[in-house]
Order: sequence, then C-alpha cells, then structure tokens
Amino acid sequence: MELLKKTLSEIQPLDEKAMDGARARQNDLTKPLGSLGRMEDLSIQVAGIQGKALPDVKHKAIFTFAGDHHVVFEENIASAPMEITAQQVLNFATHGGAVNILADHCGARVVVTDMGVATEYPRPESVINKKVGDGAANIAKGPAMTEEQAIRSIEAGIEVFLDEYEKGIDIIGVGEMGIGNTTPASAIFSLYTGKDPVDVTGPGAGIDEDTVRRKVEVIRKALEVNNPDKNNAIDVLAKVGGFEIGGMTGAMIGAASKKVPVVVDGFISTAAAILASQLNRQIDDYLILSHHSAERGFGHVSGFLGQKPLLDLGLRLGEGTGAALAISLIEASVKALKEIRTFSQAGVTDIKEL
Amino acid sequence: MELLKKTLSEIQPLDEKAMDGARARQNDLTKPLGSLGRMEDLSIQVAGIQGKALPDVKHKAIFTFAGDHHVVFEENIASAPMEITAQQVLNFATHGGAVNILADHCGARVVVTDMGVATEYPRPESVINKKVGDGAANIAKGPAMTEEQAIRSIEAGIEVFLDEYEKGIDIIGVGEMGIGNTTPASAIFSLYTGKDPVDVTGPGAGIDEDTVRRKVEVIRKALEVNNPDKNNAIDVLAKVGGFEIGGMTGAMIGAASKKVPVVVDGFISTAAAILASQLNRQIDDYLILSHHSAERGFGHVSGFLGQKPLLDLGLRLGEGTGAALAISLIEASVKALKEIRTFSQAGVTDIKEL
Repeated sequence: MELLKKTLSEIQPLDEKAMDGARARQNDLTKPLGSLGRMEDLSIQVAGIQGKALPDVKHKAIFTFAGDHHVVFEENIASAPMEITAQQVLNFATHGGAVNILADHCGARVVVTDMGVATEYPRPESVINKKVGDGAANIAKGPAMTEEQAIRSIEAGIEVFLDEYEKGIDIIGVGEMGIGNTTPASAIFSLYTGKDPVDVTGPGAGIDEDTVRRKVEVIRKALEVNNPDKNNAIDVLAKVGGFEIGGMTGAMIGAASKKVPVVVDGFISTAAAILASQLNRQIDDYLILSHHSAERGFGHVSGFLGQKPLLDLGLRLGEGTGAALAISLIEASVKALKEIRTFSQAGVTDIKEL
Repeated sequence: MELLKKTLSEIQPLDEKAMDGARARQNDLTKPLGSLGRMEDLSIQVAGIQGKALPDVKHKAIFTFAGDHHVVFEENIASAPMEITAQQVLNFATHGGAVNILADHCGARVVVTDMGVATEYPRPESVINKKVGDGAANIAKGPAMTEEQAIRSIEAGIEVFLDEYEKGIDIIGVGEMGIGNTTPASAIFSLYTGKDPVDVTGPGAGIDEDTVRRKVEVIRKALEVNNPDKNNAIDVLAKVGGFEIGGMTGAMIGAASKKVPVVVDGFISTAAAILASQLNRQIDDYLILSHHSAERGFGHVSGFLGQKPLLDLGLRLGEGTGAALAISLIEASVKALKEIRTFSQAGVTDIKEL
C-alpha cells in the first residue's frame, strides 16, 4: 500500500504556465485561429501534463496487461477459450499481434505484462512477470481477488511503468488482453455510471444476443453477491475486477505521477481509468480517451469521464490498438505546435494585428 | 477537353477479387472478427482501388492547389487579405505551413500548384505553375471563369497528378489554399444538396455572424445571377467555382484513372470531390473523406457523398491537413492487413473453427 499511496500523492495539477505558453504559440502559428480544433487542445493538454510549453512526443510505450477471468467460463458466457489469452501473449511477445503492428506505426514499443494468465504457457523473457493470481475468480460467486491482491496488482502496474520510465517515456498507451474481461469492465461501469448492466454490456469479442442476456445477469449477480463499495476503488477492483485491470490502473497512476500523458485504449482500459480517477481525481487531466469503443454502452462511460474520445472507428479489439492510433494523432498535434511557422517567422500577414 | 474525356473514360470499377482477398485475410488475422471496424473496411477499399489484395500505402503525396477569389473582396465578406494566399504558397514552398508538418508526419510529400493566385509574388520553382487566371471573378456579378478556363483548370489538375504519378504514388490527399474559397464551395454545396445557402455556409477562416449573413446573400445572388446547370459540373465550376477547385477536381480524376485512392481534405476539397463525382460517379469508390470539417453545414455535404468521414476533430484549416492525418490511419489499416499474424501462423486457436 505504501507504493500506491506515495505514487498517488505525487500527482500534481497540470502546469498552467506551460499551457498558456502552448496556447499563445498555437495562436501565433500561420493558420486561422483555432483552425486545428481538437489537435490544438491536445497539444496544450500535453504541454500542461509535461510542464513544457513545447512538449515532446518521441519516446512512446504501449503497456499491454494480460489476465484471465474464470467467471466467463464457469458461467458459460465466454466468447473464446481461455487458452487464447496465453496464446495472444505469445503472439504479442513475438510481434505478431495487432497491437504490435499499430504500435510500430506510431513508433511505440509494446510492453507486455502477465498479471494473471491462468493457462500454463512458456512465458518468454520479454513478457514481464507480475502474476498476482491464476486468473480472477468467478465474480458471480464471490470476489475476483483479495483486497491484498487488488493492491498488489495496482502496485505491480506502477512498478512496470516506473521501470520502463527509466528507459525514457514521453507518452503511454494502456491496453489489455484477457478473454472475458468485458464482463468485469461492464460491472465496473454499471457501478459507477449507475446504469443498469443491460445498458453497459455488449457482445465483447463476439457472443450471440442470448449469451449477452446471460452475461447481463451474471454481471447483475456479481454486483449483488459482492456489493462493492463504489467509494473504495480498491474494493471495487477486488470484488468485480481483474488482475490486468489492476495493472492498467497502476500504470496510469504511475504515469500521472511522472507527468506522462496516458492514452486510454478501449472498453476495459476505460474501466481501469475510472478506478484510477477514483483514487485521485487529478488523474482525469492526464487521460486522453483514444477512441469510442464499438462495445455497447461505451457512450455512457466516456461521458462519465467528461471526455469525447478522439477517434470513432468502430474498434473493439483492445490490446492497446486504439491507443496506438491516437498516439500518432497526439504526436502530430505536438509537431504542429512546434514546427508550423509563426506569422513573424513566415512573413505572413497576421490578420489579428490588422 | 480531350485529356479530361480520356482520363474519365479510364476509370474502372473497384477490383472485387482484390477486395475478396483482403476481406478473407482480415477474417484470418489473430483478432476477433471485425474488431478493427472501419480500419478493416479501409484496407479492403484500398485493396479494391489498387487491384491488389495486399495493397501498398508507401508513396504518398498531398496536392495543395492555390487560387484567389475576387468575390469575397469586392463583396466585402473576406476573412483575411488576398495577399495571404500568395504568402501561404510561399510558406508551403519553404516548408513552414501546417500541411508541410502534418504531411511530414504521415510521410507524404507536398505538391503545391498555383492555379490562380491573384497577388504578384516571387513564385519559387518548387511551386508548379498552372495559372489559369488572376483569381476567380466576382461570382455575385457573373461567372467565376469561362467554360474553357474551367476545362483547362481540371485538365491542369490531371496533368499535375500524372506528372507526379511518374515518381511513384500509392495514395494522394487533395487540399487547397485560397482566401475566400469557402464561398464558392458553399455555392456548389447548395446547388447539389438542394439546401438553402444558409444551411451550408459558415464563418470560414473567421468572419462574424453579420458577415456570415452577408456571405449567405452573396452565395444566393451568385446562384441566381449565374444559374449554373447542376447536370453539367463544368458549367458549375465555370459559374460559381474557382481555379484551385478545378485543379483539385482534376487531380482526383487523374488519381482514380490510375487506381490511386483519393483522400479528400475538408470543406473545399469536398466541393471538388462532388464535381469529380458528377463527371463520373465511379469516382465515389476512390474517395475517402478524411474528416468532418468544423465548417457549418458539412454534415449535409458528406452525407451527399454517402460517406462518414474518418475523423471528427473540429478541423477547419484546409491545405490538405485533414487528409494528412487520415492518410496515416489508412496506412495503419493496410499495415494491419498485411502484418498482423494469421491464426495459422501464430498458433492461436481460431474460434471460427471450433
């Protein structure tokens, strides 16, 4: 608990002076005032986060946390066999997954962490071992994990971030792999948005409508059986969460403590962001929602964080794929801020001064 | 007229076999079926356009066509002085403009063409000279140009594309620079969507609401005075268009004739796309709308082309900036298609075969 407390206490408000500097420069670039829309806002937010009027988006990392969820197999609502979580971890470790390709595209490295993969597999050295348990327990029958494990999983995420931070990081994306993890995510969303599970539960990677109906009932039961305390995010993680969700929450907290922008990936990543935000509301300012997940009910969720996601491309893959696409946009926004010529440099008539 | 006729006649339907191949591969990649959403559709469209199941998005060019519009100065509805068009052409030629920076980000070269800049300026060698006239005439009083000039401007755009195509092009973006060119664009939109000018006219680079009201009346007058024949896109271009709009239309036609995807930039670029589409409806399949322009009424317009733009970031800059951001996404979609491992390659259980 010490590492978590210490890291949370280190999170500062954004740097207003850096934001003012970035804003002033945006208004001096050779383009109509405000004409780059949200791209301008992004660059100003990153300036505020990093505390630099001319921020950097060069060193990028996407953290992919993996974990399993026994609830979906024991309650027969899984979209795919549990072994796929481990197989995909191997696929990522050998650069074959979607996240690897899209991370390449934006120039990010992928950091894969095993937080709680239940299937036995030959874990490669490149996969960080922070295993807290053999998959989250069946939340329809009891808690996903102990309170101690919940804290451990968040602190493991902080450790993974801090270790990687030593190698140089300007921005991170946070994604996941875990067959069944839309189920805990929907439970977390239902709890915090106050929406009925039916409004925030969809087919995940692909189950039929009948199975979605049973999934809704499983989530309803998980919330009833466990009665998580929404004023205690650690209790929520322990009762209806998952190890990879805890790892993501921790990475987000770690990044905010080091003034690093956090690009939230999709549905599950957003559940982790809500938990991080509950632990310290200051974190909200460090978050950038990458895309509007195609998973049902996501609109309620992104609204809860008070942000409109950057992209809306019907993505519902996870892993960090949406974060990778968004990081490229954010880098572009910062390049625009730093590299477009100003009116005085260009000899272009500044109409504001006419 | 010969070049235009010949080029239009060379445009083929998309290659269904290539699209089937791309679709089959998407469905074999190690990710849930359809989970990359529109990114999958994009890669399949590009496959169909290029006629290759595994298309290429390596060599990229953004064409920025420049021209002036006397209507906005004579009718006193301009957002900025006319000289800015020429100054920005120089800014682009010396790599200081927003389009240069965002084109760098997506790995595209910028091809700047003077189609009708009215201000005298020292045109650098790197700016292609296809000047058809000294700015489009005041459309509130008569046609923007002669029919001959309209054809010439489209054919100049085709020539610019074909010359650049020789250097290797897999995809293009088409943008513009021209103080006042939202006025002809809104006139074209009003004509084709059947919407009143008030519904498709906004503040452009920045005029107050009172000036917007006068701009609407100018557009209304331009349509009345000139009475363009909407069944004849060349007549429309001549009556209420502009030289850079003709150049953009030509570049789009040229690209489609060579099986090159066309990324439409923003408000004015979309007006050119509508004209190109009117000249050969087959062109629609070659177009990718990059973003939802923040300019008022754009929703009516993108709907007319039957496409939802890829991005919605409040951009209203033009130049090709939105196209540059979209090209990066399109490249990512093709990398995903080509580089994500398939189920059999990865040894990941294909749930479709269970």
